[in-house]
Amino acid sequence: MAEGANDDRARAVQPGRPRNRDEWGIEFSRIVAFSDGVFAIAITLLVLQIDMPQHLPPGTTLLDELLNQDGDFIAYGISFAVLGKLWLAHHRFFAAVERFDGVLMGLNLLYLAWIVLVPFTSEVLGDYGDDSTAVILYAISLAAVSITFQVEIEYAYRNGLVRPQLSALERRYAGPANFLVAAVFVLSIPVALVSPLVAVLMWPIIFFTGRPVADRIARRRS
Amino acid sequence: MAEGANDDRARAVQPGRPRNRDEWGIEFSRIVAFSDGVFAIAITLLVLQIDMPQHLPPGTTLLDELLNQDGDFIAYGISFAVLGKLWLAHHRFFAAVERFDGVLMGLNLLYLAWIVLVPFTSEVLGDYGDDSTAVILYAISLAAVSITFQVEIEYAYRNGLVRPQLSALERRYAGPANFLVAAVFVLSIPVALVSPLVAVLMWPIIFFTGRPVADRIARRRS
Amino acid sequence: MAEGANDDRARAVQPGRPRNRDEWGIEFSRIVAFSDGVFAIAITLLVLQIDMPQHLPPGTTLLDELLNQDGDFIAYGISFAVLGKLWLAHHRFFAAVERFDGVLMGLNLLYLAWIVLVPFTSEVLGDYGDDSTAVILYAISLAAVSITFQVEIEYAYRNGLVRPQLSALERRYAGPANFLVAAVFVLSIPVALVSPLVAVLMWPIIFFTGRPVADRIARRRS
Amino acid sequence: MAEGANDDRARAVQPGRPRNRDEWGIEFSRIVAFSDGVFAIAITLLVLQIDMPQHLPPGTTLLDELLNQDGDFIAYGISFAVLGKLWLAHHRFFAAVERFDGVLMGLNLLYLAWIVLVPFTSEVLGDYGDDSTAVILYAISLAAVSITFQVEIEYAYRNGLVRPQLSALERRYAGPANFLVAAVFVLSIPVALVSPLVAVLMWPIIFFTGRPVADRIARRRS
Repeated sequence: MAEGANDDRARAVQPGRPRNRDEWGIEFSRIVAFSDGVFAIAITLLVLQIDMPQHLPPGTTLLDELLNQDGDFIAYGISFAVLGKLWLAHHRFFAAVERFDGVLMGLNLLYLAWIVLVPFTSEVLGDYGDDSTAVILYAISLAAVSITFQVEIEYAYRNGLVRPQLSALERRYAGPANFLVAAVFVLSIPVALVSPLVAVLMWPIIFFTGRPVADRIARRRS
Repeated sequence: MAEGANDDRARAVQPGRPRNRDEWGIEFSRIVAFSDGVFAIAITLLVLQIDMPQHLPPGTTLLDELLNQDGDFIAYGISFAVLGKLWLAHHRFFAAVERFDGVLMGLNLLYLAWIVLVPFTSEVLGDYGDDSTAVILYAISLAAVSITFQVEIEYAYRNGLVRPQLSALERRYAGPANFLVAAVFVLSIPVALVSPLVAVLMWPIIFFTGRPVADRIARRRS
Repeated sequence: MAEGANDDRARAVQPGRPRNRDEWGIEFSRIVAFSDGVFAIAITLLVLQIDMPQHLPPGTTLLDELLNQDGDFIAYGISFAVLGKLWLAHHRFFAAVERFDGVLMGLNLLYLAWIVLVPFTSEVLGDYGDDSTAVILYAISLAAVSITFQVEIEYAYRNGLVRPQLSALERRYAGPANFLVAAVFVLSIPVALVSPLVAVLMWPIIFFTGRPVADRIARRRS
Repeated sequence: MAEGANDDRARAVQPGRPRNRDEWGIEFSRIVAFSDGVFAIAITLLVLQIDMPQHLPPGTTLLDELLNQDGDFIAYGISFAVLGKLWLAHHRFFAAVERFDGVLMGLNLLYLAWIVLVPFTSEVLGDYGDDSTAVILYAISLAAVSITFQVEIEYAYRNGLVRPQLSALERRYAGPANFLVAAVFVLSIPVALVSPLVAVLMWPIIFFTGRPVADRIARRRS
C-alpha cells in the first residue's frame, strides 16, 4: 500500500495533471475505500431496524411477536438488496474513474449522505409499510440516491475523468441502468398515494428487468 | 493499492477473461474487503445485544442484575465464536478464489445478508434462550449462512473460478467442514422443539469435532 | 499490501530514521486507514440520531411526526457536511505527512476522540436546537476538533514530518482553512447565548467563504 | 494489494513454510485489517454509551442534565484512551509478527472478543461509577484483554513467528509494558471493593509510568 500511495502522491505533484495537484495529492484509492466503508456500515446497520420483542404480552408467544414483525424482515430484505445493488453500481463506476476533482468528491459525499439515510427510511418502511408516507419517504430517499449518482456519472464523463478503454462499456450500461432505478422509484411515489402495496411491488422490477431494459435504452442512444 | 488496482483493471479488459471484463473490471480485492468490513461490523455490533441494567429495582444490586443477564453473555460468546469461525472459513475460501463473476458476487451478497442478521437472532437467543422459537430462529439463520456458503463453494468450483494449486486442499477441507456446520445447525432444529438446552449444547460440537470429521468425510470422497 | 508493508517495516529498522524505529515499525498507512475507518463509522452513526416515531399519538399522522423532527434532519445535514469536510482536510494533511512519531499519533488519537463525540453532540443539537446549551455544546466539540487539528499541523511542520514538495501548498491552505473553521465555531459560542439560531446560521460561512478567506490569510502570512 | 496478495498466496503453497500452507494461504494482512476494523468500530461505538437526555424533568435545564452525566463523559475519555493505547500496542506487536498459525489466529479472535466487550463494560462504568461491581467488571474486562495479549505474545515468540530484527526491541518493551497494564487492572480489583474511586484513579498510572517501569522490568530481564 505504501508504495502505491507514494506513487499516487508523486504523480499528484507532476505537471499536466492539475486537478490532482489542486487537491494536494489526495489518494484516489482512499476515497473509494471510504465509500466502501460507509456502504458496509450502512448495510450492516440495517439489522438494528428489526425491533426486538421486549416483553411478551400475556397470551402471545415469541413466535407470534416475530411473525408480527414481518414488515421489518421484508424492509430488511428490500434494503439489503437495494444497497447491495447500489454498491455494485458505485463500485463499477469508480473502477472506470481515472481521476477526480473537488466537485466529484463533493458529489460523492452528497451521494453517501443519501446512502446513510437508507437505514432510517428503511426502519420507517418496516414499521409503517401500509402508510403512504413511509413508502414515499423510502422512494424519495432512493430516488435522491440515483439522481445524485446520475449527476456524478454525467459530471465525470463531461470532464474526462473516466478511463477511455472502459468508458464505452460503462456508458452503455451504468447510465441507463441507473436511470432505470431512478425512474422506478420516482414513478412509485404517485402510485404510493393510491396504494402503498402496489408501489412497493414496483421496486423489484429493477432487479428483474434491469439488464434488458438498460440494453434497449443503450441501443436507442447509440 | 493503486498499482495492484490498475493491474486488475488492465487485466479486466484483456481478451480471454470474459467474466472479469463482463463485470467492467470490478476489483476482486474490494469485494473481499467489503465482506471483511461487514463481518467486522456485525461481530462488533454483538456487544449492543447485551442489555444495560437501566434502573436497579429496589432490593437488587448491580451484580444481581448482571448475573441475571447470563443469557446475553452466553449468546455473545457463542455468536462471537461462530462469526469468527465463519469469517475464517470465508477468508480461506476467497484466498483460493482467482476470478469471480456476477453470480458469485450475488451469492456473496446473499451470504452477507444472512451474516448481518446474526446480531439480531443472537439478541433474541440471549433474551429468550429457554424458548424453542429463539433457538430455532438462531439455528435457521446459521443453517442459511452455511447452505448459502455451500452453494457459493460449489458454484465457484464448477465454473473454474478457483486457483488450481489450492483447489485440492480447499476441496478437501472447506466443503466438508462447512457441510458439518450446516448439518449441526439443521439437526438442532427438531431437537430444540423438545429441549432448547440440548439444541444449544449441540452447537459446540462444530468446534471440537470439526477437523477429524471433515477429514473422514474428505477421505470417503476421495 | 504485504510488499508495501514489508518495505515500511524494513525502512523502520534502518538507521537515520530514529522516530520510525523508535515506534518499532508501525506502518504509517494503517494509522491513516484507522482514522478513515473511525471517520466512516462516525459519519454513518449520524443516522442513528434521527428519532423513529415509535407510536403515533391519536390525531397525528406519520407525516406530522416526521415533519416534527425537522431538527433531527437539519442536524444530520449539518453534521454530515462538517464531518465530510473535516475528513477531506484530515485526508489532505496526511497525504502530505511523510513520517510520524509517538506525539503525532497521540495527537491524532485525541483528534479522533473529538470526532467520535460528534454523533452525540449532533443528536443533542437535533433534539434541543433552540436551546443555547445544545448549540454551545456542538460548537465546543467542533472547536475542539479544529484546535486539536491545528496543534497536529503545527507539530508536524515544526518537527519536519511533512513532505517538502507538498509542504508549501499545504501550509498555504490547510493551516488558514482550519483556523477559519476553529474561529467560526469559537465565535458562535457567545452568539449562541443571545440567539441559538444566529449561531447555527454562522456555521455555513465555513463552506461558502472558506477558500477566499484562506487565500487572504495565506497571502498575509507570506 | 492484488500483487501483494498473490505473493502471499504463492508463498503459502511453497514447501518449508508449513504453518502458512496449513492455513491454506490466509493472507496475513487481512487478519490485521480485520483487527484494525474491529478496534475502529469498538472505539467509535463508545459514543453510543453517552445517554441522551430524553425528556427534561420540570425545573431542570439541558445543562443540568448534561452535567449529571459526568460519569458517562469520564468513562468515554478513559475507554477511548485505553482502547487507543491497546490498539497501538496490538499494532506494534503485529508489525513484528512475520508468520501466523491457527492458534495465533484463534488467540487473536479471543483477544478481539474481549475488546468488543469494552463498550459494554464502559457503559456500565459510566452509569454506575460509584458502584464497586461496575469498577470491578471494567477492570476484569481489561485484565482479560491484557492477559490474552500476553499469551499471544508469548506464543508468537516461543513458536518463532516474530521477525528476528524486531524481536529484541519488541521483547524489551511490548511484554513488560503489557504486563504493567494487566497488573494495574488486576490490582485495582481488590481496591475497588474498598473504594471504587481509588481503583479508577489507579488506572491512569498506566499512561504516566508506562515507559520508565517497562524499562526497569526490561533491564532486570536482560
